[in-house]
Amino acid sequence: MYITETQIRIHYALIDQMGFVYHGHYAQFYEIGRSESIRQIGYTYKDIEAMGIIMPVVEINSRFLRPAKYDDLITVKTTLKELPTNFKIVFHSEIFNEQDELLNTGEVTLFFADAKTMKRCNMPDVLREKLAGYF
Amino acid sequence: MYITETQIRIHYALIDQMGFVYHGHYAQFYEIGRSESIRQIGYTYKDIEAMGIIMPVVEINSRFLRPAKYDDLITVKTTLKELPTNFKIVFHSEIFNEQDELLNTGEVTLFFADAKTMKRCNMPDVLREKLAGYF
Amino acid sequence: MYITETQIRIHYALIDQMGFVYHGHYAQFYEIGRSESIRQIGYTYKDIEAMGIIMPVVEINSRFLRPAKYDDLITVKTTLKELPTNFKIVFHSEIFNEQDELLNTGEVTLFFADAKTMKRCNMPDVLREKLAGYF
Amino acid sequence: MYITETQIRIHYALIDQMGFVYHGHYAQFYEIGRSESIRQIGYTYKDIEAMGIIMPVVEINSRFLRPAKYDDLITVKTTLKELPTNFKIVFHSEIFNEQDELLNTGEVTLFFADAKTMKRCNMPDVLREKLAGYF
Repeated sequence: MYITETQIRIHYALIDQMGFVYHGHYAQFYEIGRSESIRQIGYTYKDIEAMGIIMPVVEINSRFLRPAKYDDLITVKTTLKELPTNFKIVFHSEIFNEQDELLNTGEVTLFFADAKTMKRCNMPDVLREKLAGYF
Repeated sequence: MYITETQIRIHYALIDQMGFVYHGHYAQFYEIGRSESIRQIGYTYKDIEAMGIIMPVVEINSRFLRPAKYDDLITVKTTLKELPTNFKIVFHSEIFNEQDELLNTGEVTLFFADAKTMKRCNMPDVLREKLAGYF
Repeated sequence: MYITETQIRIHYALIDQMGFVYHGHYAQFYEIGRSESIRQIGYTYKDIEAMGIIMPVVEINSRFLRPAKYDDLITVKTTLKELPTNFKIVFHSEIFNEQDELLNTGEVTLFFADAKTMKRCNMPDVLREKLAGYF
Repeated sequence: MYITETQIRIHYALIDQMGFVYHGHYAQFYEIGRSESIRQIGYTYKDIEAMGIIMPVVEINSRFLRPAKYDDLITVKTTLKELPTNFKIVFHSEIFNEQDELLNTGEVTLFFADAKTMKRCNMPDVLREKLAGYF
């Protein structure tokens, strides 16, 4: 398993008139968690795109347990439970507030695809090698 | 079943550098579909909030089949398959492009809650009555 | 002068915890107004990009007079006061609520630029010809 | 003068199909800069709202000099040039990339207002006292 954590300060733009983070913004928190997760193994999603590979999201499942509020410093815990063997990668996110209460869980499935042909492709070797030690 | 449709023009702010609608924005399309769905039975979500009831989202499940692109005129088909009997309501969304291709499906579960106490409550009678004829 | 109007329904995602449309979202309303303005002369911004020309925003000046609120149906009035003679185009936006109160004014300056070289270029002739009759 | 700096990592959601941060998102960068600016004097915008005071934005003027791109780590430099003497406060923002190139400048004017009556009010004394030493 490969687990990383990153923190996000909730700014005003993200809050709705219930006083909660609008539910639609959690996908961005998952995205930030994933990109920091890749950065921590010494690679970036920007590098992946520079190789001509994109990673479209194909499925998201989210559960909202408690609201995040304005100025909360949330922690996004991002977990890769399995090393991908083909074109598909699944990240699990858990979001906690400063009281360590679980606010939200998300499961995001992405494909690796060739940016030009839009055909699915395998996970790049350079990424697999960097991750292999965790599995 | 209660089914409605509404159209949304994709503007520039919604598109990412892959040239696709950023996946996180679909939750907003579901939201627009739900609110127009309620409006078409002669009520509004604004009316519900004015009664002191809020509807936090507790779960979203999305599948992304094909990308929406800049300037696409998408159709959000919103379906209520069952009339809620308690505090929980589930909306199904299907999003189509102008070629009638299915781009995305979403299932959004919301709770009815008292805005002051934040306790779950039943669907307001006024809403149930307006919907009852469809089930 | 070339003046057009378009309407936008304010959805929940746009409202902050003051109960107002978050100020940062008005740039999107101006954008929607501009794109519908171009569409009404029988062209689209998508067509412009397909010609290899992009229109980066170089300046925005906004004044916020009254707040827009949830479920408001706002009208964006977009005015082109002068036909551009070079690489620069300025759109003026005025946003009204259903009571015809002026909520916001915006002045947005964009450049025409070659998408490949990123060098400024003149307004495309096809666009100038379609607009010329209004000036 | 009171000057602070804060850094923001540009995530994917903020990028448009030109490959640039969508112009409408800069207002959020200014907001983050302002809120971190207040935090650094030992107060928060959340504290201000808890006192029953809100700070609606009444004017924004932005200039876009160079684009910010995906994964850029931008620095938002926030300057308060004058200590407010009444209900009005003006923040200046300058945004730099990692090469220390100036990307964007913004001038944001906000009012202090009573959240209940929506009437303008003076800057809270607690905030003025914390800032006074810088002027």
